[in-house]
Amino acid sequence: MVAPSARSLADNLLRPRSVAIVGASGDPRKTTSRPQRFLRHAGFAGAVHLVNPAREELFGEPCHPTLAALPEVPDHVFVLTNAEPAIETIRECAELGVPVATVLASGFAEEGEAGREREARLRAAAEAGGVRLIGPSSLGVVNPREKVLLTANAAFDEDLLPGEVFVASQSGSIIGALVSRGKARGIGFAGLVSVGGEADLSIGAVCEATVDDPGIAAYALFMESLQHTEELARFARAAHRAGKPVVVYKLGRSAEAAALSVSHTGALAGADDEADAFFRACGFARVDHLEALIEAPALLRRVSARTWAEPPRVGVITTTGGGAAIMVDQLATRGVRVVAPSPQVLDRFARAGVPVAPNLIADLTLAGAKHDLVRSAIEIMQDSGEFDLVCFVIGSSARSNPELAVRAIAECADGTVPLTAFALPDAPATLELLDTAGVPAFRTPESGADAIAATLARTVPTVRPRAAPPGAAPTTARVLDEAASARLLAARGVPVVPSVTLTVADLAVEPDLPFGYPVAVKALSGDLPHKTDAGAVVLGVDGPAALRAAVERIVASVAAHDPRVVVDRVLVQPMAEPGVAEALVGYRVSPAAGPVVLLAAGGVFAELYCDSTVRLAPVDAATAREMVAGVRGLGVLDGFRGTEPGDVEALVETIVAVSTLAEHHPEVVEAEVNPLSVRAAGRGAVALDALVRIAPPQGGDRSCR
Amino acid sequence: MVAPSARSLADNLLRPRSVAIVGASGDPRKTTSRPQRFLRHAGFAGAVHLVNPAREELFGEPCHPTLAALPEVPDHVFVLTNAEPAIETIRECAELGVPVATVLASGFAEEGEAGREREARLRAAAEAGGVRLIGPSSLGVVNPREKVLLTANAAFDEDLLPGEVFVASQSGSIIGALVSRGKARGIGFAGLVSVGGEADLSIGAVCEATVDDPGIAAYALFMESLQHTEELARFARAAHRAGKPVVVYKLGRSAEAAALSVSHTGALAGADDEADAFFRACGFARVDHLEALIEAPALLRRVSARTWAEPPRVGVITTTGGGAAIMVDQLATRGVRVVAPSPQVLDRFARAGVPVAPNLIADLTLAGAKHDLVRSAIEIMQDSGEFDLVCFVIGSSARSNPELAVRAIAECADGTVPLTAFALPDAPATLELLDTAGVPAFRTPESGADAIAATLARTVPTVRPRAAPPGAAPTTARVLDEAASARLLAARGVPVVPSVTLTVADLAVEPDLPFGYPVAVKALSGDLPHKTDAGAVVLGVDGPAALRAAVERIVASVAAHDPRVVVDRVLVQPMAEPGVAEALVGYRVSPAAGPVVLLAAGGVFAELYCDSTVRLAPVDAATAREMVAGVRGLGVLDGFRGTEPGDVEALVETIVAVSTLAEHHPEVVEAEVNPLSVRAAGRGAVALDALVRIAPPQGGDRSCR
Repeated sequence: MVAPSARSLADNLLRPRSVAIVGASGDPRKTTSRPQRFLRHAGFAGAVHLVNPAREELFGEPCHPTLAALPEVPDHVFVLTNAEPAIETIRECAELGVPVATVLASGFAEEGEAGREREARLRAAAEAGGVRLIGPSSLGVVNPREKVLLTANAAFDEDLLPGEVFVASQSGSIIGALVSRGKARGIGFAGLVSVGGEADLSIGAVCEATVDDPGIAAYALFMESLQHTEELARFARAAHRAGKPVVVYKLGRSAEAAALSVSHTGALAGADDEADAFFRACGFARVDHLEALIEAPALLRRVSARTWAEPPRVGVITTTGGGAAIMVDQLATRGVRVVAPSPQVLDRFARAGVPVAPNLIADLTLAGAKHDLVRSAIEIMQDSGEFDLVCFVIGSSARSNPELAVRAIAECADGTVPLTAFALPDAPATLELLDTAGVPAFRTPESGADAIAATLARTVPTVRPRAAPPGAAPTTARVLDEAASARLLAARGVPVVPSVTLTVADLAVEPDLPFGYPVAVKALSGDLPHKTDAGAVVLGVDGPAALRAAVERIVASVAAHDPRVVVDRVLVQPMAEPGVAEALVGYRVSPAAGPVVLLAAGGVFAELYCDSTVRLAPVDAATAREMVAGVRGLGVLDGFRGTEPGDVEALVETIVAVSTLAEHHPEVVEAEVNPLSVRAAGRGAVALDALVRIAPPQGGDRSCR
Repeated sequence: MVAPSARSLADNLLRPRSVAIVGASGDPRKTTSRPQRFLRHAGFAGAVHLVNPAREELFGEPCHPTLAALPEVPDHVFVLTNAEPAIETIRECAELGVPVATVLASGFAEEGEAGREREARLRAAAEAGGVRLIGPSSLGVVNPREKVLLTANAAFDEDLLPGEVFVASQSGSIIGALVSRGKARGIGFAGLVSVGGEADLSIGAVCEATVDDPGIAAYALFMESLQHTEELARFARAAHRAGKPVVVYKLGRSAEAAALSVSHTGALAGADDEADAFFRACGFARVDHLEALIEAPALLRRVSARTWAEPPRVGVITTTGGGAAIMVDQLATRGVRVVAPSPQVLDRFARAGVPVAPNLIADLTLAGAKHDLVRSAIEIMQDSGEFDLVCFVIGSSARSNPELAVRAIAECADGTVPLTAFALPDAPATLELLDTAGVPAFRTPESGADAIAATLARTVPTVRPRAAPPGAAPTTARVLDEAASARLLAARGVPVVPSVTLTVADLAVEPDLPFGYPVAVKALSGDLPHKTDAGAVVLGVDGPAALRAAVERIVASVAAHDPRVVVDRVLVQPMAEPGVAEALVGYRVSPAAGPVVLLAAGGVFAELYCDSTVRLAPVDAATAREMVAGVRGLGVLDGFRGTEPGDVEALVETIVAVSTLAEHHPEVVEAEVNPLSVRAAGRGAVALDALVRIAPPQGGDRSCR
């Protein structure tokens, strides 16, 4: 027999030849009695060893006092005891050379200082012997293909449907919910892991370990918070290479839910925006409907990740006008482009004997749900070259007469472009039939539109390995003053307004400016990040006397605002010509996602509308252009309402320049160009104010593990 | 026997003692064979008369050549023939005194001029004999309680679940979809009507006719477009008096879907916004998830319509932290306020032996899904006075052990505040059990949150009967010039900036202004609705010479912009002091919804963000305040980011004043105050520009029927 340690992590995790259940119970009402029962009920073919010093047998099977007393070293140990005994068990695992252990107990890092100390001991115990841990707080590991039910979750007390989607979840109850909801839809799973507290193996590490498993075709992740991103990024690249798409559902779209698991990191870019940016860079499809997590993988397998030159075109064809209109509404409100069949396509319909009126939807209601007509119509849509995806909305025949339209749809599964379907009535058998035939099908229009939108938005992963993993936000950061901030950003290629630094004492004599009046005058201090609030800015200063008066006013205002701040220098800049729009270009090192670049419209409205877009930094020009298109308030740059179009390319170059801080200035933890005045097309852009925060390089303790 | 005509419309519609099927077929593959089969299969107790001149019997039952040949006048005739023969049949119905007929055929108003003419003949045939029509294009009328299956929809070829919700739908296929989806959820219906083309009985009229039916407890409407609003409003008031809540799903949230059924009526307030305003005024709860249409009625029956003094407080309690976090996310993103249990409640939990950590969610995971503990915890939440609604998120026990938490939840159905539930796993039996017990339950977190948000947003109906029904937008409207517009609005109480009208000829001598310089100068013409675009405005004019120059510039600019417009008069106004914010207050007579008042932030951003709110006019101050709160861009009025708070009350008074056009100026079809400059609190607001469009009073042909 191969030593357990010589087998792969994935094999020991998902295909153990032998398992041990430590803390197994003989009381059938107890949670800890479940794993033995589940394994036996499912018919697990490997050895099941029971460990409980208080019992000699459990449900007719022998029980051992310790792991050491077992006849072999198990490939995977499931630890059901409380926290402290669990640490003891992991120590025993380490001594014996057990390769993988899953820990059910809670009471670790989530429970304050004492819990963190306990988790450190758990981890140390495992590391001492090379034991890889799932958990703590893990509801277990399930592989329906091999009847591995190492779980205490009551949801697994039934027959499981094997499938090709692998689920990893930070919430234990979700794996049970997905199993039952999948079953109701005829969708099974290749494996389900509740990763729990991720003390050792993170959600990314678990998935990466399984990426060569030929029985896994796609991944579905349920996340409560974004952590261990380096491993998630490594998995993203591996999954892309293996051609296995990933769909993710993450809590925290709302501040309330985000607060339940993770604290905010900024005013404009909440942690969820950063997670969004991270998933995008990973090439993950993020969905917002729970059931889309189950339904999207089939579609993701049929539509490859790519950057579309033009927005992808979805064609909608139906036997129910009302149902199709619902789907159009759902798609369009998510920004998916639904296009009408052209006159040429309508002509081909007519020649095939399928009467279809010119409309956004190809409505076959008049033709009826007849097999041959439906099939011809779908093929005409697929072969037209006018659509990148075709969505069939099936009416009542989906439930009452699947041999009509449904059979025709199933036969078009491998047509020229991917085909997907939504059934208006409740029709679980039809959805399963279509999925099996290779036509991804959806139970609700909302889940379907969510999955389609997320699928079409998915690009190839761009996330790169990082030199050092991100850590907690440094607390010792300091703010550079505007002049120093501007110099640092100018060196990266950000166009900044020219400026002169004057000491307040200098102003006794008339200053010699390299530009003419009028000018803007600002206090220069690293202690004044919000200069306007402190009365530290005077605009439109039109001569030397006014300049002196402005400086005096600034000194007085700042002193009144905060007596601890002494203004001894000011920055003088020429007044800029008015721009078409003002933008905010920000940069931040997110503790979870790493460096990100942010774009928002300038001014109070962007904040009121929470109108900003975030990407992992650095970005290329194409991504920066995508960001500009993603900020509604910057729509003025397109020449909205007769105004002159703005210099989008200058804005794009600035975004790219700011984003390169990620590569060139690891000491910068935050930067903000606000406002960047974007002028009319061809006339450039200029940063009117800038702020940079830097932190000293940190030592090895910066690692988050 | 009572003559059919002496019975109520509802009785003949939903409880016919006898029905006739005209155009019934003997070919079981044909749609037209279905009604006979459905009625017999369901066991309809009344008489079923078959009419088909080509047949003597159908499936063993006698068949008659004409309606006149029947032994009695049927209460309800279902007409399955094509369009022209259907008109003939309605004529026959009229002669015989048939009270209600449902017409399946299409080919009427939706088919252009010929179709409209056909529909006029259909209507005339019915009116001649007092026949009330459902349809044309109706898939039928179903009453599961009385086994009335007057439908040709294949979806009804199965056993139906009777229930207490009445469905009326502008889409025929939806009634079938709701029946099967409801059945999968254990929810049945009191009746389902496909209203089709509403040539006679509109969706509102059908519902109003049934409002006294004691077997109907709530209504679910599916709408493709807003029409026949006077009848819908009448139904809304009747439903409210009868204590029967109404939930509505309407297509057209997206422009694409709106275009499928109805054309746009304005730039900022699309038809869908007007529908939203109309539903709100009707006290309808509007949902966005298809299945919320099925699931919301149970909740609406338990939470009465009201205006909440404070935003209603939702408490979330759970046996699955992850599942509850999903629900919190869904609720919070819809603006529903989720509140944490207070320390007092946590203390009561502790004394009841239920360990709950302080958090937004009352998480019973540690306590476990034990019947007594769950029941105590729910009762503590319900009795605390801290929540207006309690939502229980049930974990795996919902599927595997409903005798634990689920039974406890069911027992709390009649607690101090309404209780609702979402089951994380697939658990149809549990959902049905809870619904039956009186705990509205939800299959998905999205549908649940949608239903909860819509329920809590519902108010008592405020919609009033209108003197005349709205009609198509008049084509002869003309624009009043700014001076006339301002006078009309000032008379309604809108604060307008003072102004003087000068003829261009006057300017040879220095004008005598009742206010000082600087002034604003604008061309005065009803032919220049967009003055700025035409170069017809000059601001900051600081003396008589500058005024002359400004007028010359305006005359030249307008001539260059549009040679057909001759500027012979200008309006001169004092330059207004700068305000805290600019708003747009609009008014419009919507062809569907009637007079509406609109509020948006001023400037280009409001358009970019589609940030506006619409209500039926007139509005009271409370509603106007609600409108101000509903426009994100007007958040600056609250003193955002250290700016001075704005005079919200002056804005509110202006909205109310503009909205009174609905009562005092029936000739006004559109008005716009843009911008209204809102000053700091206590300093008022002032309209800087105004525009009014009026149409001559129209004759009787304005009616839409």
